[in-house]
Amino acid sequence: MSNISYVKILSWLENKEVDRPNAADNGTLSGHAAGEPFEKLVYRHLKELYPNNVYKQYEFLNDLYRRNPESITIKDRQALFNSPVALFLLSRGDAATRDWDIQNVFEEKQNDTADILFHKNEYFELIDVKTRNISKAAQAPNIISAYKVAQMCAIILDNQDFDTVGINYVEVDWLPKEDKLVCTQAHYGNLFKATPNTLYINWAAAMQIQFHVSELDQTYTGTLEEWAKAYLKMFVASAEHRCDIMYKKYVKPFKKYVEE
Amino acid sequence: MSNISYVKILSWLENKEVDRPNAADNGTLSGHAAGEPFEKLVYRHLKELYPNNVYKQYEFLNDLYRRNPESITIKDRQALFNSPVALFLLSRGDAATRDWDIQNVFEEKQNDTADILFHKNEYFELIDVKTRNISKAAQAPNIISAYKVAQMCAIILDNQDFDTVGINYVEVDWLPKEDKLVCTQAHYGNLFKATPNTLYINWAAAMQIQFHVSELDQTYTGTLEEWAKAYLKMFVASAEHRCDIMYKKYVKPFKKYVEE
Repeated sequence: MSNISYVKILSWLENKEVDRPNAADNGTLSGHAAGEPFEKLVYRHLKELYPNNVYKQYEFLNDLYRRNPESITIKDRQALFNSPVALFLLSRGDAATRDWDIQNVFEEKQNDTADILFHKNEYFELIDVKTRNISKAAQAPNIISAYKVAQMCAIILDNQDFDTVGINYVEVDWLPKEDKLVCTQAHYGNLFKATPNTLYINWAAAMQIQFHVSELDQTYTGTLEEWAKAYLKMFVASAEHRCDIMYKKYVKPFKKYVEE
Repeated sequence: MSNISYVKILSWLENKEVDRPNAADNGTLSGHAAGEPFEKLVYRHLKELYPNNVYKQYEFLNDLYRRNPESITIKDRQALFNSPVALFLLSRGDAATRDWDIQNVFEEKQNDTADILFHKNEYFELIDVKTRNISKAAQAPNIISAYKVAQMCAIILDNQDFDTVGINYVEVDWLPKEDKLVCTQAHYGNLFKATPNTLYINWAAAMQIQFHVSELDQTYTGTLEEWAKAYLKMFVASAEHRCDIMYKKYVKPFKKYVEE
């Protein structure tokens, strides 16, 4: 289920140019910051197409609390979400939720779940934009915490909350071109169409699921209930495997130096 | 054992100024790159004080292989180190060591153990410079892989190699001041004077030991042999604890969704 025509977004992106962030000092084009103008471009384009449905995550929260001034307590503000899974993915911590007011609204936060939110008829479509300098070989980027996804799956199953959230990724491939960056191609991926067993968890990198969107498996055809169960099975097996590896690599070889 | 008067280095650093890296576009001063000019400053100063003993790690290797043109094989090149622990900490991988030649020398590599090397009479003093923007609260930086230190300790103990390596840290605290960065204070720390039990391993951040040099315990008075044993005891306990936490946090709560 998707309200956005990603096919159109991808073809619109092709050959689009943005200003090179550090053109002045001809600095390095590495890390997350380099492709940031493309994230902003995607957001502005979606906002133009769907002005009443597209938000930054923090904008949505600010809007929601502003429209419901009678909801003051943490509990009341949490109740504004009809979906436990949307509440889990989108809301801020208890202290921040309590302290929110018109004079103290939320700002963008690095560990917000989504870059962009499409909200319509109680359905939340999360969109994350990943940018990729294709002139350099780079390892797959951090996508989302594998633990956060595991918690989400448990909430989905506990609450039978199967129809309120989608998680989507857009990859913008770009090349530097004088003082511009130019998009050579764009890709789309739906997390719930990726067979859970094909996902890679990098436990040493803050338990992040890592992939290039363009390489994400999209062949899963089960329901979200089935996906959540399959994900948790993979996650538990991966955590157990990681414990096992840790023991074999970091404990066992050094035991002999420790025992008196 | 130290050949360098760190007290003098620290007082020399105070009030020193460097150019702000991205003064032109008044960009953010975050991450490792911001303080880089201070690393270079410390290196140039040490090089001036000890021109025949101070190297970048890759310079030392290039120099060593250049001075020994008869050593061609990996084995021969490894044998140029008289210390197994120095070999472990300073040499590059097998393929890179084999492929080295005058036309294909080493360049700086991000995961080299040390920023700066002081070498004299078969003794290697490793020096890492950590820079810190004290106008911002920041978590303790990555210092060195806890696993690398564990391997080093095993090599020290296996080879009774107790007198060839020291690992030292200099912290440069700085503040932005117009288009300059100014050093407000500098600190020194010796890894082998830090009580191993006080070291913090961030397993989720690539197993890095993390600390601010200015806050590093410096009260350990045992020998390097004792330090290595105490470190391994701490490391094994920490790895076992991490396995335990992983099981309790990432496996156990999700087991019920997995069992059919």
